[in-house]
Order: sequence, then structure tokens, then C-alpha cells
Amino acid sequence: MTLPIQNTQDMTALFRLGYGLYVVTSHDGTKDNGLIVNTVMQITDSPKRVAVAINKANYSHDVIKASGKLCVNCLDVTAPFSVFEHFGFQSGRDVNKFEDCDPYRTDSGLIVLPKYTNAYLSLSVAQYVDLGTHGMFICDVVEAGVLSDKESMTYAYYHANVKPKPQPKEEQAKGWVCKICGYVYEGDPLPEDFICPWCKHGADDFEPLK
Amino acid sequence: MTLPIQNTQDMTALFRLGYGLYVVTSHDGTKDNGLIVNTVMQITDSPKRVAVAINKANYSHDVIKASGKLCVNCLDVTAPFSVFEHFGFQSGRDVNKFEDCDPYRTDSGLIVLPKYTNAYLSLSVAQYVDLGTHGMFICDVVEAGVLSDKESMTYAYYHANVKPKPQPKEEQAKGWVCKICGYVYEGDPLPEDFICPWCKHGADDFEPLK
Repeated sequence: MTLPIQNTQDMTALFRLGYGLYVVTSHDGTKDNGLIVNTVMQITDSPKRVAVAINKANYSHDVIKASGKLCVNCLDVTAPFSVFEHFGFQSGRDVNKFEDCDPYRTDSGLIVLPKYTNAYLSLSVAQYVDLGTHGMFICDVVEAGVLSDKESMTYAYYHANVKPKPQPKEEQAKGWVCKICGYVYEGDPLPEDFICPWCKHGADDFEPLK
Repeated sequence: MTLPIQNTQDMTALFRLGYGLYVVTSHDGTKDNGLIVNTVMQITDSPKRVAVAINKANYSHDVIKASGKLCVNCLDVTAPFSVFEHFGFQSGRDVNKFEDCDPYRTDSGLIVLPKYTNAYLSLSVAQYVDLGTHGMFICDVVEAGVLSDKESMTYAYYHANVKPKPQPKEEQAKGWVCKICGYVYEGDPLPEDFICPWCKHGADDFEPLK
């Protein structure tokens, strides 16, 4: 049978892949850092190992590469958009994302978020795979805990229920919205070399605010 | 603050990671093969690359390693349990999983499932990472298509809505059920060295049918 579609180079097919959403915490020797990622998966069962891919442009990438330690905090469905803004929309190079937070700690000293998470995995890096723009950390699970029975946040749930919907036209300034993560650039036109500060996709993945 | 839990070696925390579910198709030179996996994620955007981890015990692992080609079929929420049984519960070494199927084909000749899928990604292997029991294929996206607007099947949705619930006691034979994937071993006791034919987890991950 012939494929029932015309466009066989439709890269939006990639959005059909399923993910959870996580805050990855790390420590640079002086302060804590946290980052939103979706690219976490268990890859072997014996030993229990997890792969975490992180954009090299993120400060956490360098911190984890140097320290060999990270903690994956599994977000649950109660996490509000502000959590994504807080950890996704500013860099640990510039701000301390935990200044007003009284968090839990793993045995290895990494932050476990006290709210909006249903489990954590404290990881030790066993192998690093260079993926070009990203690095992948292949990690042993050294500590793991279940914090609540709330459902895990999925990427699909985030897009349907957490990411703000476009405002009615009257109330709204001109701008561009990232089709990938929902980040809004206020201003027009969008610079051609603009990189989304949150998900690191380029100007091609932005569309005008409607 | 101290962690509010006693058990900090609770590996069920790994079940809080989020995944989609996919049928990965490949071709061994003679016949088509298909396999259920959950371990697929996009890892870079330029170039568009996807990582797929597959257990070495699966025939598809060897086929993909030799051919360098695979197709990820994204299952949607309409996929019934029989799809998981068909692709997960028998080996392509023994049966032709597409004998009665009239499927679509990618340009590279791989099967695109005509039902229960909302998108496909035809991939070419760029790099192989040996992960011990599993192999990870780092792949370029060479073709991609969207087949429907149905929602993607997530691992959580599968567990809540697709995996059969235990039967009432009267109707049921003695047996063991895999806590990971729902595979049922009919018989008692379960052999100590039993490996789940579907998800490859060991006897430790089985519990008695209730």
C-alpha cells in the first residue's frame, strides 16, 4: 500500500514521541542548580541505569560533566507553569534558583524538590556520550525514592494543560511563541538568529502570537 | 529538611519516568520484523537525531545493527492489547509478524503500520553505543510523517487503560504476572531464572496472580 500522506519530511512527527518532565539538580561546588529536561529514560535493568541528554548550552551540562553527579526530580501533574518558568527560563550562571527554597537533600548532597514531584533518582555518571549540540550522561542509580502517588507529568499533559494558551487579541502585545516549549518572545520582528532561551530551538520553530 | 521517606533505595521510582510506546520495524534482508519499545527520544535538533535503546536479547537489535535502518511507529491511544501481544510476545526469529498485513513502506523499504499509529520516523543509524545488556542506536531522521491527529499512547496510559486487569479469582488459573509489562506466566511456581519474554525483566519483577 502507498502511504496515505503527501509530506514525508514532516518533522512535527517528532512531537509524537512521548516524554516525562523533570527538574535535574546538580551542584557546582558553590551553589545548587536546576534545569527542566524531558530527555530521561531507563536504558538497562541490571545494573539499573538511566540516560539523561542535556544541551551543552545549559550550565547544568558543564556542572554535571565536572561533578559526575545529578538528581532527576520527576514532576507530577500538580506542577504549575511557574515551575517551568523558574527552572527553564533563566540560567544558573546568573541566578541561584534555590535562594528561597528549603529543599531535601540526597545522601550525595543534591537537592530533592519538596513540592510538585512524585519521585527522585540520585544518579552517578558512568559514561558520557558526545552528541554534538548535546551530551548524554549514562548513569547508575545510587539512590531512589517515591514521594507521592500523584501522576507523573507528561510532555503531552504539559502542552494540553499547563502551557499558557494564547491570550485574546485585544489584550496582547506583538510577539512570537516557541512551538516547542511555549516560550514567548515579546517584540517583533523575531531576530533571525534567535535561540529559545528555554528549549534552545531556533527561530524556525517560532510562530507569530495570534 | 530531611527527606520525608524511609526507603531511599526504592527502585519503583524508575516507574515514574515517562515514555511513549512504539513499534520499531526493521528488515533482515529476507523478512520484516517488529518490536515494541518505550525507549525512544529525540536528542538533538540540528541535525534531527533520535536515540533508540533495544535489548540485545531481541532479534531486532541484531537486525538493526547489521542493516543500519529502522522505523519508529508511534502508537496512538486506540492501540488494543493485541498489538502489544503480537509484537511483544513472540520473536521475529520464530515467526513472521507481518504475514497477514498489507502495510505501507518508507522510501527505505521499511514497514509503516497502517493502523493504531499517529506518526512514523524512518531512521538511519549514525552511532552505536554499547550499554551492556542493551544497545543504543543514535539515528538521523531520514523520513518522517504524521498519519493522524489521535493522541500518542504513553506508558502510563497503557498501564491504566490497555494492560488487562487481573481477573476475578474464580475464573483464573494459577500463575504469575510481570509487574513491569503485564505478561502472564501460566503455571506455578515461576522458575527462579525466568526472564519475561516481553520486557526481559527477571523473576524478581513478577507477582502471583491475584
